[in-house]
Amino acid sequence: MITDRLAAICGPDHVDVGGAVSDDLCHDEGLGLTPVRPLAVARPATTEEVAAVVRVAAELGVPVTARGSGTGLSGASIPVEGGIVVSFERMAVIEEIDTANQVAVVQPGVTLAQLDAALAPLGLVYPVFPGEQSASLGGNVSTNAGGMRAVKYGVTRHHVLGLEAVLGTGEVITTGGRFVKATSGYDLTQLVIGSEGTLALVTRAILRLHPRPDHQSTLLAPFATMELVAGAVAPVVASGVGPLLVEYIDMISMAGITANAGIDLGIPDDVRQDALAYLVIVLEDHHADRLEEDTAALAVRLAELGALDVYVLPDAAGHALISARENAFWASKAAGADDIVDVVVPRASIPTYLADVGNLAAATGSLVVGCGHAGDGNVHLSVFQPDPDVRHGLVHDILAAGIAHGGAVSGEHGIGTAKLDSFTDLEDPVKLDLMRRIKVAFDPEGILNPGKVLALPPLEGAHP
Amino acid sequence: MITDRLAAICGPDHVDVGGAVSDDLCHDEGLGLTPVRPLAVARPATTEEVAAVVRVAAELGVPVTARGSGTGLSGASIPVEGGIVVSFERMAVIEEIDTANQVAVVQPGVTLAQLDAALAPLGLVYPVFPGEQSASLGGNVSTNAGGMRAVKYGVTRHHVLGLEAVLGTGEVITTGGRFVKATSGYDLTQLVIGSEGTLALVTRAILRLHPRPDHQSTLLAPFATMELVAGAVAPVVASGVGPLLVEYIDMISMAGITANAGIDLGIPDDVRQDALAYLVIVLEDHHADRLEEDTAALAVRLAELGALDVYVLPDAAGHALISARENAFWASKAAGADDIVDVVVPRASIPTYLADVGNLAAATGSLVVGCGHAGDGNVHLSVFQPDPDVRHGLVHDILAAGIAHGGAVSGEHGIGTAKLDSFTDLEDPVKLDLMRRIKVAFDPEGILNPGKVLALPPLEGAHP
Repeated sequence: MITDRLAAICGPDHVDVGGAVSDDLCHDEGLGLTPVRPLAVARPATTEEVAAVVRVAAELGVPVTARGSGTGLSGASIPVEGGIVVSFERMAVIEEIDTANQVAVVQPGVTLAQLDAALAPLGLVYPVFPGEQSASLGGNVSTNAGGMRAVKYGVTRHHVLGLEAVLGTGEVITTGGRFVKATSGYDLTQLVIGSEGTLALVTRAILRLHPRPDHQSTLLAPFATMELVAGAVAPVVASGVGPLLVEYIDMISMAGITANAGIDLGIPDDVRQDALAYLVIVLEDHHADRLEEDTAALAVRLAELGALDVYVLPDAAGHALISARENAFWASKAAGADDIVDVVVPRASIPTYLADVGNLAAATGSLVVGCGHAGDGNVHLSVFQPDPDVRHGLVHDILAAGIAHGGAVSGEHGIGTAKLDSFTDLEDPVKLDLMRRIKVAFDPEGILNPGKVLALPPLEGAHP
Repeated sequence: MITDRLAAICGPDHVDVGGAVSDDLCHDEGLGLTPVRPLAVARPATTEEVAAVVRVAAELGVPVTARGSGTGLSGASIPVEGGIVVSFERMAVIEEIDTANQVAVVQPGVTLAQLDAALAPLGLVYPVFPGEQSASLGGNVSTNAGGMRAVKYGVTRHHVLGLEAVLGTGEVITTGGRFVKATSGYDLTQLVIGSEGTLALVTRAILRLHPRPDHQSTLLAPFATMELVAGAVAPVVASGVGPLLVEYIDMISMAGITANAGIDLGIPDDVRQDALAYLVIVLEDHHADRLEEDTAALAVRLAELGALDVYVLPDAAGHALISARENAFWASKAAGADDIVDVVVPRASIPTYLADVGNLAAATGSLVVGCGHAGDGNVHLSVFQPDPDVRHGLVHDILAAGIAHGGAVSGEHGIGTAKLDSFTDLEDPVKLDLMRRIKVAFDPEGILNPGKVLALPPLEGAHP
C-alpha cells in the first residue's frame, strides 16, 4: 500500500487517507472546477522526505500533486484522481534573510504575508504582489505569479534566483544561487518556474529582495473611453516616472469593487456618468518630496492625455482602493461570475482586444466585464454566462482573440485544467510536442501532476 | 553534397566553402582557443532559409554553429570540425521599434551599437551593456550576455520577451510576445536564452525597452582592502539609490586599464599607494537635481564606509573610465594574459573568494588580477601563467573555489568549449543528464553546436 509507505516516510501523523483528507485540499479557488479527493495527502517535513515520497510514487506509478496554500485559480493544485497530494504546510520556514546579498531563502510553504512581515522591518521587499497574500511561495514559483506590480518589477520569474527541486525520478537538484547572473548551462530555474508542478516539486527558493520605498501615492483618473485609458499608458511609462502599478478598471467593475469594499471615492456624479473606464496609478519613492513632485507632474500629464478629472487619493482611500482592486476576483465571485479570464496581450492592444471581447459577449448574450493590469497588458475578465456550453465556446473565443492580438491565454493564473482545452487547441502543436518531450526529461514516469498544462500523456522519448 | 544544397537554399553567392571561408569566422575572441575551419558558411536571408539549412543538416547529420559578430569569449561560436556555420550577417534588420509597447523586434545579426543608435533619439534604451557594442543580439541571447549594468537592470534574459527560433528538427517556433508576463506552458524563451546555440537557432527577438535617463554621474572610491570594497556594496544597494553599476577594480588592473586608455584620474600619490582596490559607482536619473543630491549623499556614505577618498569624476573622465573598464578584457589581452575567468559568486563572498584565488595563484607562482561587477558578484580574473598544464589546473581550481562559495563557473561568458571540462567536472551529474535530455528534446539528431556546453553525445531518449 502506498499509504503505508508514505506513513513510513513522513510519520503516520502526517499522512491522511481517503475520507480523512480535508475538504480544503480537494479544490483551489478557481470557478467551475470540480473538486477531487486524492488517495492520500502526505505532509513531509524535509526535502529528503519529499524525494522519498516521489520515489515511491514513481515506483508505483501514482500521480503526485504539490500543494501550497491552494489559492490558485486554474486547477493546477487540485488533486489528480487516484493520486497523492504533497502538502508543504510543514515546510514553511523562512530559512534566511541575507541582507548582504539581498536574498531570502524560503521553504515552499512560506506565505507572501509571512515573508513580507519579516522583510518590512528590514526595509526590504519581495516585490511580487499577486493579490493574495496567503498564497505560498512554492505556489507562486509554480505558477509564475504576477500581479499588479509587474509593470515596475516584473513577475515571479524575475525574482527567483535559485531553486531546490525534486524531479519526477525523486532526484534532488539545486539550481542558480545568490546571484542575478549566470550562464552555466541551461536555465533549469526558469524552466521549473511556471511549470505548475508538472516538472518538479520545489522544496526551496532563493528570492531576490529590493529596498522598500517608504512613500506611495495613488492617482485615480476617469476617462470617457477605454482607448483613452490605454493611450495614456505608454506616455506614463515612457516618462520615466517608473509607476509601481498601472491598472484599468471598467465602470461596472469599479462600481462592484467599491460597493463590495464599502468605499466612496467621492467622484462627482457628472464625472462618474461620463466615465467608461478608470486608470489607477500608484507611484512609490524613497523620498517624499520627489514623490510629491512626480505625483503633481503626472496629474497634469493625465489631464493632458484626456482624463475627465484626476484625483490624488488620500493614503487611506488609496490603500482601500488598491486593496479592493486586489480583491476584485472575490467581488466578481460574489457577484456570481461564471468564469474568469486572464489573457495577456500587448498593452497597446488592450482597447481593440476589449472591443473584440465586447462583440463576442454581445453575440452570445453574455456579460463580460473586467479590470486589469494596463501597464503590462494582463486583462482579467469576469464572464457571466450561465449556460456551460455557450460559456465554454465564448471563453475559448475570448482566449483565441487574445492569441490573435499577439497575446497568450494566461498572464498569471496558469493553464492547470481550467484552460487546458483552449491551450491545447490554440497553442502551436510543435511547441506542445516540445513541451511534452521536456516533461519526459524531468518526469519519465509521468507522475508529476499529470493532466495539468499538457493534455496528452507524455511521449515516451519520441520525437518527430 | 551539402554545399550544393546550401547554395540552392541561400543562393550560391551566400555560401562559402572550405578555403573560401573567411579566417574571421574560424575563431572568437576567447584566449587560447584553437580556430576551426568549417566545411562551409551559409548566409541565409530569412527564417525560412535558416530552417531549410537546418533541415538539410539534420538529414545529413552535419553540425551547425550559429554565428553573430563572433565576439564571444568561450568558444561557443567557433565552428565544429566538419560542420557548417550559419552566419546571420544578412539578417541584421531592426524590424520594429514599438514605442507603445516599449519593445524592439530585431533580427539576430543586429548589433548592440546599431540598436542603441536607433533607440537613443527616441529616449529609449535596451539596458544590457555587456561591454562590446559590436556584439550581435543573437549572440547576446545565446550567451545570456550580462555586463556592468546587471546590478540595476539584470541581464539579457530579463529583457527578452519573445523569440522566433529554429529547432534542431528544422521546425520554427515563436515564443512569448510583446508582454512581460505569461504563464502559458513552459517558458521556452528562457530555456533558449543562454543555451549557446545548442538548443535552437534564434532568428528573431522581442526585446523590452526602458526610458533612457538623461543624466549620469560617476563616483570613484579607493579603499585600503577588498573587504572594505565588498562591505560597501550592500549598504549602497540597500540605500535605494539604485546604482546603474557598481564595479571593483584591483590596483594592478586599475593601473593597466588607465594606462592602456591613457587616462589620468588625478588621484594623489599617497592615496594611490594605500589603495588596494577601487569601487566605481555610476548613478543615472531623469532629473539632474536628484542625481546631484544622490551623488553627494552617496559620496558621504562611501567615506563613512571607509573609502580613502571619494572622487566625483567630471563627465568626460567618468565616461573614459567606464569605457576603459569595458575594455579591460582587451587591456588584459594586450598585457599577455593567458586566460580569463568569469566566475560569479554571491556578492558578499567576493573578498573571501578573492583571498582563496590569491592563495591558489601564489601556490602555482601565477599572477591573477582582476576587476568585476561588485554589485552582482561577477568576478573577471586575468590569469598569467604560461605553462598550459599548470594554468589548466589553476583555472579549474579557481572555478571550483567559485562553486564552493555558492557560485557558478560562468557569470556571462558561457561554457562553450573554454570551460567545458571544468563545467562537466564540477556540475552535478544529475543536472548534466537532465540538460542532455532537454538537448535531445530540442535537437534529436544532435546537430546543433555539438560539443559546446555539454560534453558527452546526447543520450538517445534514455533516462535514469
